Formats: sequence, structure tokens, C-alpha cells
Amino acid sequence: MKILITGGAGFVGTRLARALLARGHLNQRSLTQLVLADQFAPPADLVAQPGVQARVGRLLDQCAALRDEPFDGVFHLASAVSGECEADFDLGLRSNLDSTRALLDALRHAGNAPRLVFSSSVAVFGPDPSRPLPPIVADETLPTPQTSYGTHKLVCEYLIADYTRKGYIDGRAARLMTVTVRPGRPNGAASSFFSGIIREPLAGEDAILPVSPEVSHPVSSPRRTVEGLIAVFEASREQLGGRMALNLPALNVRVHEMLAALERVAGPAVRARVREVPDATIQRIVGGWASGASAERAARLGLLPEARFEDIIRAYIADNEAHPTALKGLNAS
Amino acid sequence: MKILITGGAGFVGTRLARALLARGHLNQRSLTQLVLADQFAPPADLVAQPGVQARVGRLLDQCAALRDEPFDGVFHLASAVSGECEADFDLGLRSNLDSTRALLDALRHAGNAPRLVFSSSVAVFGPDPSRPLPPIVADETLPTPQTSYGTHKLVCEYLIADYTRKGYIDGRAARLMTVTVRPGRPNGAASSFFSGIIREPLAGEDAILPVSPEVSHPVSSPRRTVEGLIAVFEASREQLGGRMALNLPALNVRVHEMLAALERVAGPAVRARVREVPDATIQRIVGGWASGASAERAARLGLLPEARFEDIIRAYIADNEAHPTALKGLNAS
Repeated sequence: MKILITGGAGFVGTRLARALLARGHLNQRSLTQLVLADQFAPPADLVAQPGVQARVGRLLDQCAALRDEPFDGVFHLASAVSGECEADFDLGLRSNLDSTRALLDALRHAGNAPRLVFSSSVAVFGPDPSRPLPPIVADETLPTPQTSYGTHKLVCEYLIADYTRKGYIDGRAARLMTVTVRPGRPNGAASSFFSGIIREPLAGEDAILPVSPEVSHPVSSPRRTVEGLIAVFEASREQLGGRMALNLPALNVRVHEMLAALERVAGPAVRARVREVPDATIQRIVGGWASGASAERAARLGLLPEARFEDIIRAYIADNEAHPTALKGLNAS
Repeated sequence: MKILITGGAGFVGTRLARALLARGHLNQRSLTQLVLADQFAPPADLVAQPGVQARVGRLLDQCAALRDEPFDGVFHLASAVSGECEADFDLGLRSNLDSTRALLDALRHAGNAPRLVFSSSVAVFGPDPSRPLPPIVADETLPTPQTSYGTHKLVCEYLIADYTRKGYIDGRAARLMTVTVRPGRPNGAASSFFSGIIREPLAGEDAILPVSPEVSHPVSSPRRTVEGLIAVFEASREQLGGRMALNLPALNVRVHEMLAALERVAGPAVRARVREVPDATIQRIVGGWASGASAERAARLGLLPEARFEDIIRAYIADNEAHPTALKGLNAS
């Protein structure tokens, strides 16, 4: 199988690529080629593996060449994040809407109706004046996005469903929960602090909590998220139960529960590195998100959320034991 | 006020234009200029009225010039119809998605955040395998469109809501029911027969019914539809109750009830001109539509559906008394 991952150098993309290479197959077919398209270069060790090819450049610019190159499967993860889209409306339209449209048209032109998994987002849900958001958003909750990011994700869900109905692709959209703990530095996502308040203290650095500790949010670990994307790829249409997007599993957790878990795992000194510094912009964006999510259709695919936030923290620590700086704070405590 | 109507030479567009000229104002402001943009020329008598200007050409090609021409209000009605979009996927994307996107970007560029009413459609609703359609679709029913037309209308609803949230326009989307009785010839819409089975018999011609007489459908008269568009334009954001699209009022009626009303109004000889000739393509498309609709938010704006289908037929006859051929069948009966 020849597989394309857009956003293949990103946080979820590289983990998905490593997971695919480790398992070596999808739907009982051997993985032979893995193309990682991204505006940045993927890690060198990943590109060095046999069958892996990096294509560096904007997705929108890469799509013309894809029109005559059939892929057996596509994971479309490339996206500008929510904070970026709020700050730069045109960037959001170009990166998240025009690029997806160009990709869909390229796949349609290639003519082999490839299977495609699109990473949509729980950010499609939001509180509209006419329709208060339920505490737990379900697969069939009416999306009323309150950000451009959420709007474009939703629009792409519907376009993918229609290209699929027409037989141009075999598309499915999975709504990712906030993936945490992300390694590295904060990014432009308004949700970035959900990783920062765990990652920075573990690295011996102070972290800022820009929202109330009472904020509840649906999160998932990188591992469960990648598992979900692969399961959605492998599922039959019947198993998926239709063409509409489905939620991936979420652990619905309050910020103070996240911090209590951090204290149990790493001690009070590490927990104490998180300071509350309210940020009105982030509060406004996060206030428009769901406080929790359910995932009935994903459960029918055998996908389940983590049971406890502590497990997510421990998995992050285990993943990073080879990287001393990532856990400097933990080692010092 | 300077008003733009896209699709201003169409069936609803010309009626809206005449209604606006007759009332002479919107939101207590005088109508001074009315621009009718359409791929076809509007009726000559309409263009001859003071302040009316026709711009003939594809909307997509007209949008560049609109970027530096502020309008106080826009009614965006231009659209390819459902049958056309199913037959030509690229035409649908270009006419219904790209054109709307170009219009929104032009209005944003003009910089005066004009009020905009978008004619969405009850076709945003459809029966998805995972989510059977309720018998009556409401404002807050989850849309799962089963046609490209419905998909693009829905996508535009969400884009308009986001451009509005950002303050680039003051947009509102109203979902039109099937407008009947349309004068003239059948068009490419799969719903065209809903007018044909009334219009053709009244003109002394045979008409074909391509679906079961048991089919139920939400319809509206041209007059009520135009009233609805104007009321949605004039409503405040609070009166509208949010940025999400709202249904316009529907008379939910079965085809056999429409035909019985035709018989009551025009006699059995006229009714007998309708023959059942099942058409699998139209049955499939219509089978994916809602059998009825409710319109609670529109009702709060004072908008109500017709009480009886007979009233719709009588209004059509009254409208056409000046056109002998339109009512040849009636006069002969």
C-alpha cells in the first residue's frame, strides 16, 4: 500500500507514521510506501526508513502533482491551529479549507477512490445563542462552531462526505479530542496550555494556566489518538455507521484534576510550578468549546478513552525517558 | 440603500426585486439603488425602473469588481439547482461554493459589513445511515445532506456564520422550502415536478408525476418566500436568535393532497392531465429529502406558512391572469 500523510512531520503525523511503520500493514495489505507531506521536514530517522519519502512544502502547492499519483490511502492531518486561524482569517481559509478542497480534487482526479481519514476536531462544537451546548457533545450533536478553525473542520467534514457519496474517495472524518501531553514548545493553538501545564513543570519550568481550574475538557493521549485514526481507516463503511464524522474517545477531565494527577505522579513541587494567569482571549476561545465528549460510534469500533489522566502523564514520561530535558523537573523533584 | 440581489433575474430574485421596489424601503431606509446580478438578463420592465441596474454574467466573474463597491444589503440567491449539481459536480462546486466564497471575500474587502441574506435550502437535511431523518425537520435538526446541492448550501451557511462572527458581514441564512407554483418551463431541479403537476395542467398540458402520490414535502408560495427573505433581512440579531440558519415556514403536503386541491380549484379534467411515470433518479433524490419542516424561529419573526395548498394554487392563478397561455387549461375546463 502506498500511503500519504499530510501534516506528516507534525506531532500526530510523525507518531502515526511510526505506528504504521511498526505494524507494517493496513487492512491486511503490506505498507510499501509512506509519503509524508508537510511544510516542515520530518525527523531524519523517520525519513531514513525504507519506503519513507518526505515532501516539504505547502500542501496547497503540492496538490497539483498529486492529481496523477494514485495513493491507496490518505491520512489528511495538515492544518493550521485554532489560535492561528483566529489571528489570520486568510491563513485559516487557505490552510484548512482551500488545501483540503485541492487535496480532494487531486484524489478525485487520480481516479482510484482512495480511502481517506480526515482529522476533524471537537472544536466543531460550540455554544450558539440559539442552541446552548450540551455538557457532553455526542456524535450526533448539532455542530455550531465558534471559531474559524472549527468552522473549516466542519465544512471539510461535509465536503468529504459528499465526495465519498459520489464515489470519488472513500472518506471518513474523525473528530480528535485535544491531544495531550504534546512534547516540545507551546504552539499557536488556544488549547496549547493543556499540554503546557504538564510538560513545562515536568521539565523544571514554570507554566501558565490561562483559564479557571474548573474548566472541563475532553482530552486524549497521542497513543489513543493514533490508534483511533488507524481504526477509523480500517473500518468498513458499515462499521462506521454512515458518512458523517464521528468523535474519537475522550477522557473528560477538569484542569484541577489534571493538576492533582500531576501532583500524584510527580510531587507537589512540580505541581507548584503552574501559576494561574487569566488570558481573556484564550478564556473566550476555550469557553466556546465542549466541556466533554462521548464517542459511541468509536466505542463500537473498539476504541476507548484512557481511564485516568495519570495514565496520560505516565505515558508521556515513559515516552520521554530518553530525553533528559523533557523531564528535568521530574528528575530534580 | 444600495441593494444587491444575486440571482436577481431568477424566479425568486425578480419577485424579490419587485417586492422591494413596491415597498421602497428596508429597515426604515429608502431603497435608492437595486443591482440585479445574474447570468441572464432580468425582465426589461424591471430594469427600466429608476435605480435598477442589471449586471449580466457569472457571479464568480463579477465578484472581483464587487470588492471595491460597498452595498448596504445583499440578497444572495444565485445558485445552480439540485439536479444540475448531481449531473455536474464541478458546476455545483463552482456555482454554489466558489461563487459564494468569492462574494463573501468581496463583501469583506469592501469593508462596510453589509447585511446579507443567503437563500439556503431544506435540502440540507437528508437521511444518513447513522441518523434517520425525523418526519419534520426543525431549525435545530442535524443536517446530513444527501446531495451536492444540499452539501454546498450547508457549507455556505457555516461560512456565512463565521464571516458574521468575525464582523466582516452581518449575515443570516434562511432555508427555503420548495417554492411552488413556479411559472415557466421545468428546470433542472429534482423538485421541478412539484410545480409542473399544477402548472402544466392549468396550461392545458399533460404533466408527469415521477414519484409516489404518497410523497410528502414542505412547500411554500413565491409570495411567502419573498416575505420571509425580507423579514429575515430586517430582523435584528436578537430577533433571529443566533447566527445559525433558520427554516422558512412550510406547508407540509402530500402529492395526492396537492392533486386533490388542483381538482377542487380547476376541476377533474385538469387533474386528469397528471400521469404517474416513476423516475428512479428523481425518486432517489426526493427520497432523501425531508417530508416536512417546522419553522419556530421564523414564526417568532411573525412568518407563517399558507394554511392550504388551494391558496397557493389560487394565488398562482391570480398572478397569471394576465398571461393567457399559463392558464389555457383552466379557461378551457
